[in-house]
Amino acid sequence: MLLHFTKMHGLGNDFMVLDLISQKVRLRPEQIRRLADRHFGVGFDQLLTVEVPTTPDADFRYRIYNADGSEVENCGNGARCFAVFVHDRKLTNKNRLQVETAGGPLILLINDKGLVTVDMGVPRLQPDLIPFAAEHQAISYPLEVAGQSLEVGAVSMGNPHAVLRIDDVAHAPVAELGPQIENHPRFPKRVNAGFLQVVSRNQGRLRVFERGVGETLACGTGACAAMVYGRLQGWFDSRVEMQLPGGHLQLEWQGEGHPVMMTGPAQKVFEGHLHL
Amino acid sequence: MLLHFTKMHGLGNDFMVLDLISQKVRLRPEQIRRLADRHFGVGFDQLLTVEVPTTPDADFRYRIYNADGSEVENCGNGARCFAVFVHDRKLTNKNRLQVETAGGPLILLINDKGLVTVDMGVPRLQPDLIPFAAEHQAISYPLEVAGQSLEVGAVSMGNPHAVLRIDDVAHAPVAELGPQIENHPRFPKRVNAGFLQVVSRNQGRLRVFERGVGETLACGTGACAAMVYGRLQGWFDSRVEMQLPGGHLQLEWQGEGHPVMMTGPAQKVFEGHLHL
Repeated sequence: MLLHFTKMHGLGNDFMVLDLISQKVRLRPEQIRRLADRHFGVGFDQLLTVEVPTTPDADFRYRIYNADGSEVENCGNGARCFAVFVHDRKLTNKNRLQVETAGGPLILLINDKGLVTVDMGVPRLQPDLIPFAAEHQAISYPLEVAGQSLEVGAVSMGNPHAVLRIDDVAHAPVAELGPQIENHPRFPKRVNAGFLQVVSRNQGRLRVFERGVGETLACGTGACAAMVYGRLQGWFDSRVEMQLPGGHLQLEWQGEGHPVMMTGPAQKVFEGHLHL
Repeated sequence: MLLHFTKMHGLGNDFMVLDLISQKVRLRPEQIRRLADRHFGVGFDQLLTVEVPTTPDADFRYRIYNADGSEVENCGNGARCFAVFVHDRKLTNKNRLQVETAGGPLILLINDKGLVTVDMGVPRLQPDLIPFAAEHQAISYPLEVAGQSLEVGAVSMGNPHAVLRIDDVAHAPVAELGPQIENHPRFPKRVNAGFLQVVSRNQGRLRVFERGVGETLACGTGACAAMVYGRLQGWFDSRVEMQLPGGHLQLEWQGEGHPVMMTGPAQKVFEGHLHL
């Protein structure tokens, strides 16, 4: 059969997006792996599918598959692409979408500049929920890495993050310290390692070494975790522009118990079709 | 404007192919670089364009651009994709095509299984034409690398190749020796380093560390150079099936003064369109 798709990216995190409302197809994991291959297939970080919701209060069902074919719970960059996709294809004209995901309901807001705001949920700071081995919750913790004691924040945005403040992201030791923080025994499920430069009370620069992946162009949950840590430390106000290697995200957080709101772009690259 | 393209690969060497006969567009190098990007663009190793020939004896003009936007002379995997593309799009129904390239005229033959034979030209063995520093032409040469003396063949297929026979490609020291051979001072324009396993008189296995690139899935000129070296050594008959990481190529060579004929597949992955 002929499969129509759209290739998109959010700050360089790239996606193959499928309308599975008008196209009735179910892809097997080996088909997803083949499509994800950047030489033999279409090439993407994740596959996003738009489906009919199974609950009456949701506008769409949004599913995400990694390049290895496994289904995952959420992806902030993908959620922005999802919102722009359903608008572009006129599957809806609502500016506020409630979306059903494997990680629970998700609220997406599209503004008139085509930017999308994603409610990234309430950050969890209790060590056992991150999970992180510490006796008490604190703003920062000493972490022994490579014979030195680093001061890191520990935040869960659904996935665990350690955030380290550094002077200059351009010269941050991401490749050296990233894998050591990622696999530190105090993070039993490993951890994403963020390297944060505080530029001003409203601006940060961030590089993230993602768990199981390595350094990426734009980690949405990492940007949220860095915002939370910087605000808890008193370095940031409630709105911050975070510069990542792939582009900028706007973050807003009112403090503990509130969700982090993340706003950013989503870009269509091309439309394509292929024979499955 | 809307640009239509086809994504193809030959043994995993992947291409964006443009019909510039029906579409009048000239891409700037920065546009090619953006399109080549695998996260922000379409993603490809090379861009291939099909154009009206400037000489009356040619059927088409075939141009090749690297991902950095620079034009290059030839690409064997690309030539097979070119031939399948012009057939698929019914731009010709000839099975023998004469094509104008920046490297001179090229003959392509399409067989009824959709495989394409490319005349890869006559190999050059004189050291100064490779270029390679040696007093006399020989079948093989001792080359000092990492404190050991390796026995290598030296062949130009338009680009320089050093070929080293090894027992088992699966365990060949491509990553260790590849960069040292590539940059060996006796190859003043550097060199592509091939690691050849002779399986039988009609079968070889090959991995190639490409000059300026690193190890690739399928180096067409490298397969030709390995064929030539193996036949000069008396290891191969005149027809050899060469297994590369991306798939198989059939090679035929009758000996010095004759061209190497390379036969292999070309695969369409998808068709797409985008706004320039």
